[in-house]
Amino acid sequence: MTDIPAAARIAAELDGDAALETFHTMWSELDAIGVHPTGTRRYSWTDEDAALRAWFSAQASSRGMDVHTDANGNIRAWWGGRPEDGTSGVVTGSHLDSVADGGKWDGPLGVVLGFLAVDALAAAELQGRREGPSGYDAYRRRKPLGVVDYMDEEGTRFGVACLGSKLMAGALDPSKARELTDSDGVTLAQAMRDAGADPTGIGRDDAEIARSGVQVEVHIEQGRQLDVIGAPVGVASEIWPHGRWEFVFEGLADHAGTARLQDRKDASLPFAATVLAAREAAADLDARATFGRFRVEPGGPNVVPATVVALLDARAATDGVLTAMVDRVSRAAGTAAAEHGVTVTVRKISHAPVVEFDASLRELHGKLAAAAGEPAPEVPTQAGHDSGILAPVMPTSMLFVRSPHGVSHSMMEDASDADVLAGLRALVRSLAVLTGGDDEHSDH
Amino acid sequence: MTDIPAAARIAAELDGDAALETFHTMWSELDAIGVHPTGTRRYSWTDEDAALRAWFSAQASSRGMDVHTDANGNIRAWWGGRPEDGTSGVVTGSHLDSVADGGKWDGPLGVVLGFLAVDALAAAELQGRREGPSGYDAYRRRKPLGVVDYMDEEGTRFGVACLGSKLMAGALDPSKARELTDSDGVTLAQAMRDAGADPTGIGRDDAEIARSGVQVEVHIEQGRQLDVIGAPVGVASEIWPHGRWEFVFEGLADHAGTARLQDRKDASLPFAATVLAAREAAADLDARATFGRFRVEPGGPNVVPATVVALLDARAATDGVLTAMVDRVSRAAGTAAAEHGVTVTVRKISHAPVVEFDASLRELHGKLAAAAGEPAPEVPTQAGHDSGILAPVMPTSMLFVRSPHGVSHSMMEDASDADVLAGLRALVRSLAVLTGGDDEHSDH
Repeated sequence: MTDIPAAARIAAELDGDAALETFHTMWSELDAIGVHPTGTRRYSWTDEDAALRAWFSAQASSRGMDVHTDANGNIRAWWGGRPEDGTSGVVTGSHLDSVADGGKWDGPLGVVLGFLAVDALAAAELQGRREGPSGYDAYRRRKPLGVVDYMDEEGTRFGVACLGSKLMAGALDPSKARELTDSDGVTLAQAMRDAGADPTGIGRDDAEIARSGVQVEVHIEQGRQLDVIGAPVGVASEIWPHGRWEFVFEGLADHAGTARLQDRKDASLPFAATVLAAREAAADLDARATFGRFRVEPGGPNVVPATVVALLDARAATDGVLTAMVDRVSRAAGTAAAEHGVTVTVRKISHAPVVEFDASLRELHGKLAAAAGEPAPEVPTQAGHDSGILAPVMPTSMLFVRSPHGVSHSMMEDASDADVLAGLRALVRSLAVLTGGDDEHSDH
Repeated sequence: MTDIPAAARIAAELDGDAALETFHTMWSELDAIGVHPTGTRRYSWTDEDAALRAWFSAQASSRGMDVHTDANGNIRAWWGGRPEDGTSGVVTGSHLDSVADGGKWDGPLGVVLGFLAVDALAAAELQGRREGPSGYDAYRRRKPLGVVDYMDEEGTRFGVACLGSKLMAGALDPSKARELTDSDGVTLAQAMRDAGADPTGIGRDDAEIARSGVQVEVHIEQGRQLDVIGAPVGVASEIWPHGRWEFVFEGLADHAGTARLQDRKDASLPFAATVLAAREAAADLDARATFGRFRVEPGGPNVVPATVVALLDARAATDGVLTAMVDRVSRAAGTAAAEHGVTVTVRKISHAPVVEFDASLRELHGKLAAAAGEPAPEVPTQAGHDSGILAPVMPTSMLFVRSPHGVSHSMMEDASDADVLAGLRALVRSLAVLTGGDDEHSDH
């Protein structure tokens, strides 16, 4: 039975050089999939996605793990065999997809460290068996450990983030999900079929939730909180409330030369005013507001913009502040639109209230960090995650690894070897207790 | 020999009902090609382009006209046979392509009225022959009359307006033109080959310029000058100087949730400020400035914009004002970019100085209008045209037909039957003199 001191000892004694060597080998294998000079392009149900799944399966096979893809396209490698129906394991991992031209760390770090944690726990177990019942026996696996890769966490292809976990948690209507389209008009259903997957069974999956048991996800920190504190590893306290709103400005196409300014209904003008208003509102409210995706129609170089469609990504510390900010931006859009004879409609695309991660898991992470002498301060995050989506239906927690300058969704994403190892040790400690400890920590 | 009073009589006596019937038949045939609920999509070297060329050839054949496509992809139907090398005819027409989701009148009106003018002149000539030498003999064709459809006037597909006339006039380097790419990365050379055309011979075509002789182009007015004056038809005096400038704002991709506002380099912010600054500068200088095409990269809904690429279309009454306006917008862009840690580069894509149409053709149009009692006031235009591109190498002029509300590059483009007929009469008068009159007007 692995208690907190034993877990700390296992993590402290893991072979860091060997782990880093494996880490870099796995990393360079991933570098061959969808990494371009301008950024990483790994989108769901594409050729790159298939290559990532093949890589994941090969990693699992080399460790003797059973691979299973659930009805929602989430793939898991089980060490100790996939739990039978009615029994539960422990899950770690993250996602392998990326935003458009994203970085290499957001997602893959958690998957790779999941496999490295299996290596470390397998080594600890082997050492215990070698030394026999009377010897060093810090760890024996009592529950299966799954490494998971969630489908389309970034929402890059179909515009809905955390697609795989939302479907699994029942947070997204499967009929509507099947009809989601990518920029080429391909539906999720068609994309899944094209990739050899069956879209008919997507949706809430209570059996898989029960089987997963509890989840600890490692993720590169997105932001500079740990950098500012000077901590290699942190524990996520909560996810800020956040959401997306679509702003559609509709004016009138006209000739960019001949139409008099006073006769125009140029959709780009209120859009531009709204971009600036959103920044101002976010600054005033200590929140975040970003128009990261927008397009103009018809888009001719000599045509007055008829339509601008823009997505507002908004996040704040509380739902009250979030609502106030979006209201303020919407009002600014309406005022600017009216000035230019343009109409604007604002539509909520998604909204996630505040998510607090599981209190007992957070307490466990804190105790383990203290026992190891490797502090892991609690920090909130402004980013959505599969672990946040799943938090209402199962205990989840997240460990963050420090990002040197906090830049995220960019090829500037990075982490030092030392911080990767610190993250691995924190994960191994937690999984050692959760899969090898007593019921207090392993049953939730 | 057709003099001014004879030309006025021919136009006055043309059968308007029959002409309108033919007009509407031709219009409904064109409606079957590339017209969508949201607008007209007719782009060079596409299937729609091939259908338009086939329609054009069929119209020519039904009138016994010879069809010839020049090396630059401009297609002409010659009434009276294509002029031999060393001889010249008279050309009318316009273009059949459209902007993205454009209207149906910009271009096609001039081509259709060109064919209707052939019908009217052929009828006048036939009547003269029937009545014999002693009878009514107002018109006899002394020069071939060509109806032309210029290749890619709008520049929608390859980003360069007046592509066919620029190549013909030697205003565009053919090697560079062949390498122009569309949004799918297809070059003009490849697009031409795919459509069965040979791109190797594109470029300045002095023989075709000489053969064309003089050109009178009818075009729907883009703007409300004639509407405000209350005139069905106008004569173009000049084209405002105009050009396109590319603004590239480069910041840094980051996570839309986790990146602190003060750490961001969000390219959308100075872009938005520049859109507003351009409008203000244009209003102050009584000019035009429009960002009709822009895109954001990477474009993820939860990614801070790294790059915004935007095209400024700018026009003014003089080159001095145009330069002052673009300088002012560029300075505003630089200031806003610096505030946000973003860089901006401004690059001139194209520039056309003021174009004054041929003085003697304008005088002829004016005299004919006066003789017919159908005033055709001179108005400038802010729009580029093939006739403007060709003005430096051959005499050209333009007749504008009133647009009820002036909206252009939109499905709202329109003209009344009465104004279409007025435009046809003005064209027939001019072509009667130019193809059937004495040397003063027919030789330029």
